[in-house]
Amino acid sequence: MANRVVNSVLGQGTRVWSPVSRAVRAMSSGAGSGASPSHTYETLRVSQPRESVIHVELHRPEKRNAMNQAFWREMVVCFDRIAEDSDCRAVVVSGAGKIFTAGIDLMDMAGDVLQPEGDDAARRAWNLQRKIREYQDTFSSLERCSKPVLVAVHGACVGGGVDLVSACDIRFCSQDAWFQIKEVDIGLAADVGTLQRLPKVIGSRSLVSELAYTARKLMSDEAKSCGLVSRVFPDKDSMMEGVLDMASEISSKSPVAVQGTKINLLYSRDHSVREGLEYIATWNMSMLQTEDIMKSAQAALEKKSPKEVLYSKL
Amino acid sequence: MANRVVNSVLGQGTRVWSPVSRAVRAMSSGAGSGASPSHTYETLRVSQPRESVIHVELHRPEKRNAMNQAFWREMVVCFDRIAEDSDCRAVVVSGAGKIFTAGIDLMDMAGDVLQPEGDDAARRAWNLQRKIREYQDTFSSLERCSKPVLVAVHGACVGGGVDLVSACDIRFCSQDAWFQIKEVDIGLAADVGTLQRLPKVIGSRSLVSELAYTARKLMSDEAKSCGLVSRVFPDKDSMMEGVLDMASEISSKSPVAVQGTKINLLYSRDHSVREGLEYIATWNMSMLQTEDIMKSAQAALEKKSPKEVLYSKL
Amino acid sequence: MANRVVNSVLGQGTRVWSPVSRAVRAMSSGAGSGASPSHTYETLRVSQPRESVIHVELHRPEKRNAMNQAFWREMVVCFDRIAEDSDCRAVVVSGAGKIFTAGIDLMDMAGDVLQPEGDDAARRAWNLQRKIREYQDTFSSLERCSKPVLVAVHGACVGGGVDLVSACDIRFCSQDAWFQIKEVDIGLAADVGTLQRLPKVIGSRSLVSELAYTARKLMSDEAKSCGLVSRVFPDKDSMMEGVLDMASEISSKSPVAVQGTKINLLYSRDHSVREGLEYIATWNMSMLQTEDIMKSAQAALEKKSPKEVLYSKL
Amino acid sequence: MANRVVNSVLGQGTRVWSPVSRAVRAMSSGAGSGASPSHTYETLRVSQPRESVIHVELHRPEKRNAMNQAFWREMVVCFDRIAEDSDCRAVVVSGAGKIFTAGIDLMDMAGDVLQPEGDDAARRAWNLQRKIREYQDTFSSLERCSKPVLVAVHGACVGGGVDLVSACDIRFCSQDAWFQIKEVDIGLAADVGTLQRLPKVIGSRSLVSELAYTARKLMSDEAKSCGLVSRVFPDKDSMMEGVLDMASEISSKSPVAVQGTKINLLYSRDHSVREGLEYIATWNMSMLQTEDIMKSAQAALEKKSPKEVLYSKL
Amino acid sequence: MANRVVNSVLGQGTRVWSPVSRAVRAMSSGAGSGASPSHTYETLRVSQPRESVIHVELHRPEKRNAMNQAFWREMVVCFDRIAEDSDCRAVVVSGAGKIFTAGIDLMDMAGDVLQPEGDDAARRAWNLQRKIREYQDTFSSLERCSKPVLVAVHGACVGGGVDLVSACDIRFCSQDAWFQIKEVDIGLAADVGTLQRLPKVIGSRSLVSELAYTARKLMSDEAKSCGLVSRVFPDKDSMMEGVLDMASEISSKSPVAVQGTKINLLYSRDHSVREGLEYIATWNMSMLQTEDIMKSAQAALEKKSPKEVLYSKL
Amino acid sequence: MANRVVNSVLGQGTRVWSPVSRAVRAMSSGAGSGASPSHTYETLRVSQPRESVIHVELHRPEKRNAMNQAFWREMVVCFDRIAEDSDCRAVVVSGAGKIFTAGIDLMDMAGDVLQPEGDDAARRAWNLQRKIREYQDTFSSLERCSKPVLVAVHGACVGGGVDLVSACDIRFCSQDAWFQIKEVDIGLAADVGTLQRLPKVIGSRSLVSELAYTARKLMSDEAKSCGLVSRVFPDKDSMMEGVLDMASEISSKSPVAVQGTKINLLYSRDHSVREGLEYIATWNMSMLQTEDIMKSAQAALEKKSPKEVLYSKL
Repeated sequence: MANRVVNSVLGQGTRVWSPVSRAVRAMSSGAGSGASPSHTYETLRVSQPRESVIHVELHRPEKRNAMNQAFWREMVVCFDRIAEDSDCRAVVVSGAGKIFTAGIDLMDMAGDVLQPEGDDAARRAWNLQRKIREYQDTFSSLERCSKPVLVAVHGACVGGGVDLVSACDIRFCSQDAWFQIKEVDIGLAADVGTLQRLPKVIGSRSLVSELAYTARKLMSDEAKSCGLVSRVFPDKDSMMEGVLDMASEISSKSPVAVQGTKINLLYSRDHSVREGLEYIATWNMSMLQTEDIMKSAQAALEKKSPKEVLYSKL
Repeated sequence: MANRVVNSVLGQGTRVWSPVSRAVRAMSSGAGSGASPSHTYETLRVSQPRESVIHVELHRPEKRNAMNQAFWREMVVCFDRIAEDSDCRAVVVSGAGKIFTAGIDLMDMAGDVLQPEGDDAARRAWNLQRKIREYQDTFSSLERCSKPVLVAVHGACVGGGVDLVSACDIRFCSQDAWFQIKEVDIGLAADVGTLQRLPKVIGSRSLVSELAYTARKLMSDEAKSCGLVSRVFPDKDSMMEGVLDMASEISSKSPVAVQGTKINLLYSRDHSVREGLEYIATWNMSMLQTEDIMKSAQAALEKKSPKEVLYSKL
Repeated sequence: MANRVVNSVLGQGTRVWSPVSRAVRAMSSGAGSGASPSHTYETLRVSQPRESVIHVELHRPEKRNAMNQAFWREMVVCFDRIAEDSDCRAVVVSGAGKIFTAGIDLMDMAGDVLQPEGDDAARRAWNLQRKIREYQDTFSSLERCSKPVLVAVHGACVGGGVDLVSACDIRFCSQDAWFQIKEVDIGLAADVGTLQRLPKVIGSRSLVSELAYTARKLMSDEAKSCGLVSRVFPDKDSMMEGVLDMASEISSKSPVAVQGTKINLLYSRDHSVREGLEYIATWNMSMLQTEDIMKSAQAALEKKSPKEVLYSKL
Repeated sequence: MANRVVNSVLGQGTRVWSPVSRAVRAMSSGAGSGASPSHTYETLRVSQPRESVIHVELHRPEKRNAMNQAFWREMVVCFDRIAEDSDCRAVVVSGAGKIFTAGIDLMDMAGDVLQPEGDDAARRAWNLQRKIREYQDTFSSLERCSKPVLVAVHGACVGGGVDLVSACDIRFCSQDAWFQIKEVDIGLAADVGTLQRLPKVIGSRSLVSELAYTARKLMSDEAKSCGLVSRVFPDKDSMMEGVLDMASEISSKSPVAVQGTKINLLYSRDHSVREGLEYIATWNMSMLQTEDIMKSAQAALEKKSPKEVLYSKL
Repeated sequence: MANRVVNSVLGQGTRVWSPVSRAVRAMSSGAGSGASPSHTYETLRVSQPRESVIHVELHRPEKRNAMNQAFWREMVVCFDRIAEDSDCRAVVVSGAGKIFTAGIDLMDMAGDVLQPEGDDAARRAWNLQRKIREYQDTFSSLERCSKPVLVAVHGACVGGGVDLVSACDIRFCSQDAWFQIKEVDIGLAADVGTLQRLPKVIGSRSLVSELAYTARKLMSDEAKSCGLVSRVFPDKDSMMEGVLDMASEISSKSPVAVQGTKINLLYSRDHSVREGLEYIATWNMSMLQTEDIMKSAQAALEKKSPKEVLYSKL
Repeated sequence: MANRVVNSVLGQGTRVWSPVSRAVRAMSSGAGSGASPSHTYETLRVSQPRESVIHVELHRPEKRNAMNQAFWREMVVCFDRIAEDSDCRAVVVSGAGKIFTAGIDLMDMAGDVLQPEGDDAARRAWNLQRKIREYQDTFSSLERCSKPVLVAVHGACVGGGVDLVSACDIRFCSQDAWFQIKEVDIGLAADVGTLQRLPKVIGSRSLVSELAYTARKLMSDEAKSCGLVSRVFPDKDSMMEGVLDMASEISSKSPVAVQGTKINLLYSRDHSVREGLEYIATWNMSMLQTEDIMKSAQAALEKKSPKEVLYSKL
């Protein structure tokens, strides 16, 4: 019956649209919604090294992947696209060249920060707030994207780099990596995520405070022992292989299960246990109706590996 | 010194960009940022009847301003543009034709609601959630826009119309107006704002519940006595004049003061008094540095009307 | 396929259980789960005056419906049963005899309040807190029940009576009704809901404070003008008829729509607009998949009244 | 046993101190803690017109009770003293002379607002925030004081006056009174409480927004119908008598009950119903052990009026 | 005087009742309230190995303690009983047989998860939500019980086992133990507590995400270094002895102090520091009136061990 | 123009005042506001060992720095002074003599805790709550002070000592240090900060619970591995030098950046990430207008060390 009603009501095809796709289409006219889009950027290189795994590489190696205006603009477009891309089930972020990133490109960004528009202090403040929110939005797009984001850090990860990795789901680094909350040295409190997310990422408040006040370097071993990274690899090559393997492993699982997990982990971070339980009960009242559970149960019954199950796109 | 440093650092002009302007530019290539944009839509008519006042008219009179897909898409673009338009200091919303709006255009929207994409219950749910958020975003754009939004209702205001007016700042209606929370009659709990905002808009929870459970009409007199509207006008013409006068009055005041007021009223609605006080103390630590205060004080000293003061754009 | 897997996995019928049904069964062994239970109580009289409408009458008329220990115990059982009763779609609460209720039965309750168990101040406090939470739980059961609860007040509504009506969804009264927050006169701050819910029920904080500090009576006209009740009827008979009519009207609508509305109105009362929108988007991602919407749309298409549609039980 | 241990442990008298009493003592060396202090101020006149009732009069009639620096400083000291004064059980606030208050004394305060200390925008902001918090603290002291505060307004109540009355518990006015949120006319968003508290005081958000954006006057009748005031008196004299009578009435009740009510009403305003219920259950686990309940129950048993009961100081 | 009034008012003994005891009595008719109840279950074995210490053993060793429907039902009854049992001051949970638990018993539970009741997607969702909340409630009963719960894990702790241990207060394991968040492999986001509680239990968000997305095993050493367990014992026997010793140690202390600590630790987890401080100040205003403090102080004065002090039951 | 208006309006110098300075002046009449005050206390020794670094030493070595009434009173005065002292940019706290602190001085404090004022349980509770809030306020003053507080612990840190160090920003200890949450042994739940702050300071909830329930000692190595302290030094001398060096390092940086960092770290601890980002965007809209950023950028451009830059006082 449903179809009959709908058809008589509709008499036409439905169009899909979204705020995200509005923006995405503005930049890349060739992208078909739902299909895997072609990602072309000045500061990023995007590839698909494994099935359903997208690799986003910070790619201004000659500038030590410093974050210029193009980067801030492209990163959010890139992740909003990935969020919409049903062929992608996990994302890996890394840096091209000698280091992960030198942080904000002060040369390129100085105008925004050093010379806010406006003749009046209030109007300058107004413009500054808008810019800060835009920069924040760039890294929040990594959380807004419901696919797990794994980040692999080698060499230096400075300033904005720490903001970036704090917004990822799982962090890895190579032995030569180090992290530095640099903002205090340029006269400002870090405002694109480090102060908000890092204390909820690692287990020692004493350490977060020390790093934020002193701008001292955190070396890879300490990054592991404090819980910032899950694992330290001997070098970048072994790290990339290890991280892509894990991303591939995650991609083989039910996307309903994996992405529902990310959404609920983030919700729970910011709510009480009681609210978190209430939310997932509401979330799962639809999600438990998925065929993925039946497929998984069937596989378990037949002693198959979960990897052998084929799950539909999400 | 500042300029010297900046210039040596920059060596180039700064570009402005924002998520909003990305979307906006996608639809209207001729719009200059900062300058008053030309608003052209299928379902809305936008004009500037008074200085610094923008009038947004729901404009599908032949369809009783029913909210079709184009409307949901255009409304958010329209208000995101207005938010960025420094020439605008107040907005008036009204409906063309015989009534304010008949609510959602079930014919046009049925596909989204009645026939969600996906073969699996979980995947259908996923797509439904995305659509609901998009619809919610349409009306949230009225709150995200920091300029006061006044709404003038005549005739019927049904279903989505109540969601819309709940998201405005000040509500007015003509004697012949009535309001109806219609959603329960099409088998769903209202999900684009009425259940969330209306109880914080009017003072009787008993009444909100009754309206939401029974879908009965709320006539203009009761709308006034329960606080939904600020004033009832005898007819549409007198209402439009009254509302435009008030919008004009608001536009003559300091935009730093007016828009800061809106932002803090909304913040306080959703926070404790203690948090609200903390936020405005932080907000005003820059805003009190505005020249507008000095201009206003000077005018007061000279016994001038506040309307005689010229405030810079914001 | 699902069935095959499930059957091979299960090989047995599923049993239903719940904390609520545990308690319910403890008191009334004859109640079949899902079927309409026989409600038998000392202090309440429960009937079904209209299809799908349950009428709960406070029924100790010789004691002016004073709330004794049996009442506190039975009320929560009654409403937990109603919550589980898929034949019920709306509830009406009223009082038998001359008045709605004289409030707490001090004679019967004095032990709990005046003589807490325990020799040590801390242990007495511990026991007191447990009792308060139990009493609170009695009225919270009206909100926990997702069916709308309409309350019809005649004559006096004192003390605990105000706590009770504050927890209902829609309030009505007869011309002779009055309300009194009596607790302050027996030396305590009202602790079973009035101070928490009433300020979110009516629109004047000044009035709530006055009533709570002075224990003065609020007469029916003021109850209407301040928004406590939706309507004042000339006498109890006309009120009961009016209220049962509205309950009947509500019962004719989709229970998915009505009960989802109650759940989201309560959620929104206690959360920010942003959180409320997020919750209903998650809620409706399953609820919009209901056949009730299709049925309603079909009826609208065929110009039928919503009342002609038959919705399945919930 | 307790005494023996304590005495052997102590061997000396205990001293009482508090942050409040530190400040209080700094200004008024003759005040004995616990005893009724002598209140002497430049801008306030404090008296005790009824038993246990303190009357605080804004007293710069020649300046229309404009709020100068002395006022902001003295008000918080006055209310912190009253909070500590166990002889006081209710407070009445009114204005001497022709009007309640003309609001902030721009002449006296201009330095703070117009000329913030500091050569650097950030340092000026820092100093501004500190000042705003101090001003906010002045009115928050009315809520921090657990005794009910009744305010009686005649004539004009402008700007800071609205902030003040919003922080009181019960509001009254005379027929000639009017209220005006004036801040927008001097170029700033009201930052000492109006935007935070007023929307939680009255039931129409539309009206709050209109008043805040337009600075129009709210006359006494509309103040009554929107719930801002509980009652409008024909003139100041009848108002003062009515308000003092009510304060006296409140003072005759158990201070444990009354002040616990205020504390929990404020807590509930800023928390969900669930949190509010949890808090009062914890609050009352000690407060229900008071002898006041027994005294009240005894009186009820003996058919005495609550006013005949003598409750100990709190 | 109190007794006289109470007796004249009461003229009868007080009865104790509670939602919990209603349910408890339904299942175990022989249990006297306050006295240590006899715990008899299909899936649990309950004993009292030390004074005031209750040991709850998951006891379906032939099914590797898989959590079947009886388990979910019995666990909440067991802990609600323990919560009411004033003879118990600490609880130890462990598993009988070769491993702690294999997690959910998919064979037994499949109906609930794989075949939700209802013909309509919304009605299935409704039933699913109710079931999820029941399962959540099972583990929340460990937190609702104010006595400290210590858990001792040996061998595998899979799926629901991780949800269970996350809800305990202190965790221990033997060298051979491992933990696995298994849910993602059966196609769902874990919804009975792991995603909500685990990130607040251990210090590395990166690790939580990795475990939840990949379902990899966490071995005992890593469980120690990440803070999941407090200590790793060489084998089950030494672990049980160590854990019972600690439970016994805790039982020797003031139950007012210990259980108040648990309640406030849980409150603080879910609130800001400011709210947590406010709550404990309100909590302790009665609890500091306990004789336990005097007893403890007396003991300290006499250089006795705290263990020598006898505290009354709570 | 601003000056002209202000001068004509003012005609007088502005006075600075604050609640804090009221209290401060009450105790130390010689302190000039803004200038470095002379700190003289019974229980504290305050010095300035490095430029812009204040050293607060718990100084009752003969009583093992036990916290008596003078200590609780003086500590809050000391830190409120430091908060106002623009010459100070970092604070170091340590203990004189053999240990850091033995915790609360039971001999001196017993009256407050063991013998609360008042004949009635409710009135005793009232007085107890006030005292608890005062004690809480003492340690909250360390967070209210926006300068980073580093604490250096040697020997024992017992009871109130753990509350104190939990309120500091960065913790260090010497090899011989140990920590003990002692409160449970004197019959009470710790109520001046440990239960609220410690779980947000270290990464293992299991460990926090164990320490709070058992009162066992936490030795320095475990304090390091669980994240309570940032570093363990071999002895007190090396620790003091290391800690002062770090304080000195922090003092060399922009106070706008450092203190803004502290304020936002604390805000973020108690709010969701979304709220934290919103707050810092509002905070930095003024703070990014500071000259300190320009100075820092200039230095970076000229390859100077940040330490060479001179920042104005804050």
